[in-house]
Amino acid sequence: MDMIAKNVQALEKLTVHTHNQDFLLTWEKSRDEIEALLLTAEIFSEMHRQKKPFRLFDSGLAISIFRDNSTRTRFSFAAAVNALGLGLSELDEVKSQIAHGETVRETANMISFLAEAIGIRDDMYLGEGNRYMREVSAALEEGFEAGVLHQRPAVINLQCDIDHPTQTAADLLHIRNHFGSLEALRGKKIAMSWAYSPSYGKPLSVPQGIIGLLTRFGMEVTLAHPPGYDLIPEVLEIARRNSAASGGSFRRTESMAEAVAGADIVYPKSWAPYRVMEERTSLLKRGDREGLKALEKECLANNARFKNWECDAAKMKGTKGGSALYMHCLPADISGVSCERGEVAREVFEKYRLETYREAGFKPFVIAAMIAMARIPDLPTHLARLNA
Amino acid sequence: MDMIAKNVQALEKLTVHTHNQDFLLTWEKSRDEIEALLLTAEIFSEMHRQKKPFRLFDSGLAISIFRDNSTRTRFSFAAAVNALGLGLSELDEVKSQIAHGETVRETANMISFLAEAIGIRDDMYLGEGNRYMREVSAALEEGFEAGVLHQRPAVINLQCDIDHPTQTAADLLHIRNHFGSLEALRGKKIAMSWAYSPSYGKPLSVPQGIIGLLTRFGMEVTLAHPPGYDLIPEVLEIARRNSAASGGSFRRTESMAEAVAGADIVYPKSWAPYRVMEERTSLLKRGDREGLKALEKECLANNARFKNWECDAAKMKGTKGGSALYMHCLPADISGVSCERGEVAREVFEKYRLETYREAGFKPFVIAAMIAMARIPDLPTHLARLNA
Amino acid sequence: MDMIAKNVQALEKLTVHTHNQDFLLTWEKSRDEIEALLLTAEIFSEMHRQKKPFRLFDSGLAISIFRDNSTRTRFSFAAAVNALGLGLSELDEVKSQIAHGETVRETANMISFLAEAIGIRDDMYLGEGNRYMREVSAALEEGFEAGVLHQRPAVINLQCDIDHPTQTAADLLHIRNHFGSLEALRGKKIAMSWAYSPSYGKPLSVPQGIIGLLTRFGMEVTLAHPPGYDLIPEVLEIARRNSAASGGSFRRTESMAEAVAGADIVYPKSWAPYRVMEERTSLLKRGDREGLKALEKECLANNARFKNWECDAAKMKGTKGGSALYMHCLPADISGVSCERGEVAREVFEKYRLETYREAGFKPFVIAAMIAMARIPDLPTHLARLNA
Repeated sequence: MDMIAKNVQALEKLTVHTHNQDFLLTWEKSRDEIEALLLTAEIFSEMHRQKKPFRLFDSGLAISIFRDNSTRTRFSFAAAVNALGLGLSELDEVKSQIAHGETVRETANMISFLAEAIGIRDDMYLGEGNRYMREVSAALEEGFEAGVLHQRPAVINLQCDIDHPTQTAADLLHIRNHFGSLEALRGKKIAMSWAYSPSYGKPLSVPQGIIGLLTRFGMEVTLAHPPGYDLIPEVLEIARRNSAASGGSFRRTESMAEAVAGADIVYPKSWAPYRVMEERTSLLKRGDREGLKALEKECLANNARFKNWECDAAKMKGTKGGSALYMHCLPADISGVSCERGEVAREVFEKYRLETYREAGFKPFVIAAMIAMARIPDLPTHLARLNA
Repeated sequence: MDMIAKNVQALEKLTVHTHNQDFLLTWEKSRDEIEALLLTAEIFSEMHRQKKPFRLFDSGLAISIFRDNSTRTRFSFAAAVNALGLGLSELDEVKSQIAHGETVRETANMISFLAEAIGIRDDMYLGEGNRYMREVSAALEEGFEAGVLHQRPAVINLQCDIDHPTQTAADLLHIRNHFGSLEALRGKKIAMSWAYSPSYGKPLSVPQGIIGLLTRFGMEVTLAHPPGYDLIPEVLEIARRNSAASGGSFRRTESMAEAVAGADIVYPKSWAPYRVMEERTSLLKRGDREGLKALEKECLANNARFKNWECDAAKMKGTKGGSALYMHCLPADISGVSCERGEVAREVFEKYRLETYREAGFKPFVIAAMIAMARIPDLPTHLARLNA
Repeated sequence: MDMIAKNVQALEKLTVHTHNQDFLLTWEKSRDEIEALLLTAEIFSEMHRQKKPFRLFDSGLAISIFRDNSTRTRFSFAAAVNALGLGLSELDEVKSQIAHGETVRETANMISFLAEAIGIRDDMYLGEGNRYMREVSAALEEGFEAGVLHQRPAVINLQCDIDHPTQTAADLLHIRNHFGSLEALRGKKIAMSWAYSPSYGKPLSVPQGIIGLLTRFGMEVTLAHPPGYDLIPEVLEIARRNSAASGGSFRRTESMAEAVAGADIVYPKSWAPYRVMEERTSLLKRGDREGLKALEKECLANNARFKNWECDAAKMKGTKGGSALYMHCLPADISGVSCERGEVAREVFEKYRLETYREAGFKPFVIAAMIAMARIPDLPTHLARLNA
């Protein structure tokens, strides 16, 4: 039996309640639903490889709202919705009237009369991004209930201030394939580590998303960062609970070397302390340019104290067998390539470069899977039929 | 017999000459053609509700040219053309070379080799928008006649300085459904009233489009505005002639309260006096920033004299049974929501909010109907086949 | 036998190795491949005229990267990929993170997971545009070989610093149709002549592309320009070699009148001297605004010495029978229309205006043919099937 047939069979055994639901945080989804997401994404990927179309819609729009720059996620979303048969419309808030005081509620309905999915990226403002997604979602729910909308579009989180589920699901698929199965992840050590970057204000969504998701699979998850570079407390609590429930572990350290020692996987990635992001959010809201400049200067100075938080060959040597899997959500700050000193040494990155491309390559299929699971009732039957 | 079948049957009895024609002004279309537009839009809406595709094209482009910001119309157009099977390309005059002296004639042909429809929004310059659409149209006609274009794309007016047919057709469908039939509109009173807004320079196309269209159905149409807030004289004349021909009435008043008294429908909406729009057009053409600032200041001061032109609960009480249908093309200036004082009181808007969403919800289907009627010969037969 | 069937039959006899290949320079393609391109483009055009769809893809993205403004090419690309069944995504480098130091290599893979074609326009920097295309191409090749990409997207040159193959292939199709056959072009005289323009910095790709392509068909090609307005030497060498091989001729002159005398075809078009483009490139790279201003001033002053290099009625009189075919890639600088003095006199342009539109009209079909030939194995069989 080929992989597609096996996955469809596995899908049929899972308990999944994703129809008419958004995808906002991985920890709002059951373990079965996460597994179904991986299986579906993998089916789509394999179908694409085999040049089998998986158009599940005759027509309909998918709308993207990017409140931060994006190349990868933008194209992943575009590719995903095209493959499903949807047309893409981007809500560009410069072009549109959103900036001129329209309520979110109204706009959400106005753009959605024939929409099947709305992908949103809003990761700049702590306390705002995920909340904005929920506002859109509530407006769509109201419109659908009132018959304003003929269908309930799914809101897909393309990165918010809390989580980055399309990225972390792709990451999970990547390591599942690397180690052979979800079961094989049990006991594997991953170091989710802060790393030095010459820029500032990078979102927290990836490290938070990683510790929130991978703790569900019995992994030994270590979060490492310099003093002060904290993530938001709620997500730490979720990671703790997840690891307790899954039989894994979750610990924190202030040493990168300690975190990566013996690790099966290293994920070195810069971020800003959550308290800085809070302050930045309130400065941005007030439009306080002087304050923002001062904050940036202070933060960069602080970052600079931790230039040795670089994933270099020496640190990689300390990992399990000296050959841990290096991961990154891209683009990485590569020392001597994209910056003088950065998150990762050139030689380390180059060794794993194509691996990080492969990791990213799951993203369009993950997004397609999220949309299909939210919009197509009885999806496994459709997938079975398409592959009959 | 279900609604779709009934509509198709009704369509077949109408005399329609819309093939290869543009849709620029409602009053250039016959009464049968307007009815056919409503029936077709309703068929599309119902098919969408029933999840029946109405792709009438295998491929082809629909092009939008927005010379003013737009969220709603942009997405309505995107949704409509996607549902018909067309690809959307937006002509962004910042990205393109249009600003660098290309003639409209040439560009119209260059973008249209595989185009089926061109939607244009150009409502900023009095005397210009509709004229621009006709220039594009003439160029397409020439290109088609000369064999440069294999097909004659339809120009669809997505709002100009004179009319806003996609909006008013959606409005008409909304009130037809509210009152049960087009016949039932006979004798119904509608107050198309100016309302206070803290902004300036709002186009005249909605009030002009409303009085130009609704006077054709035997309605009693009252246009209300403060002294000086005149619409362009030609459209007033059209409204007068239409009402005479249809057995309705058209009158003007300078009192909002008087207009809404006993009304079945109220449509309170701000606009700028046409003489101001003329002056603004010539200032914009000359790039006279100081002049524009002075004009804005003067106009806002003048607006401020009419802050009581707000659709509030007291005025609604004076309508027929205290429960007239409130309409708006959105976004409304809602007092205490989007501005301190605006066109409509918060409580009035909130009561009718979902109704205004529903009103807007017809727009994608109206646009799809306009394109289909212009491009698909023998459309009723196609619709019958799709629903067999 | 109809034209489509004849073309398909002719196609089947040609030796074509374009599968999984880019289209970057016409002189990298064999004579058979150029002929196949024309035949395929003509089949698509005729199918479109007959309203026969030529969707050769179920789904997939085509990506455009425009590093210079464009209306015509943008819409030609959009139309072509839509007709083939692909979805269009534009990589807007302002919106995206490319400007922030990402490597071309990485981005090329990140945007291409489900891409079938990447169209690039990069004509501003001498020595850069074509090189950039090859960097993208090498990255895609690497990604495909490593299994990162399931398919190898074709890079299509939508205009670079060296060549403009989509334009010149459309030009060739136009003159082939005008004179009846490729064979009939043998011995025909074409004057590719510089012409005066009040602007500066126009790319060299059209004149270079024309002399590089038309010298392959036994034509007598004359390149005319004022002293100093040289093209890049490598392309002159290619033109010389091509004409020697094809039995035509290639000569240069510094007199427009001499070039057009007795010509069957005139192609008057402004460009900047290649040495100016080199200097401009280095000033642009250094961000030297003062230097750029000084260069522009100097160049415009130099241009102004050659205002008589205008394609006017008197010069047209000197052509073969006084009725040479006038060609232009559009938009032309038309004296008294788009500028005071320009490349072509108003009356000359007006006489050939619709002809230039027709010339441009081949472009979408040429682009579609380039993509289809690169991506669809055994294309003639597919075309035969679609037209059975």
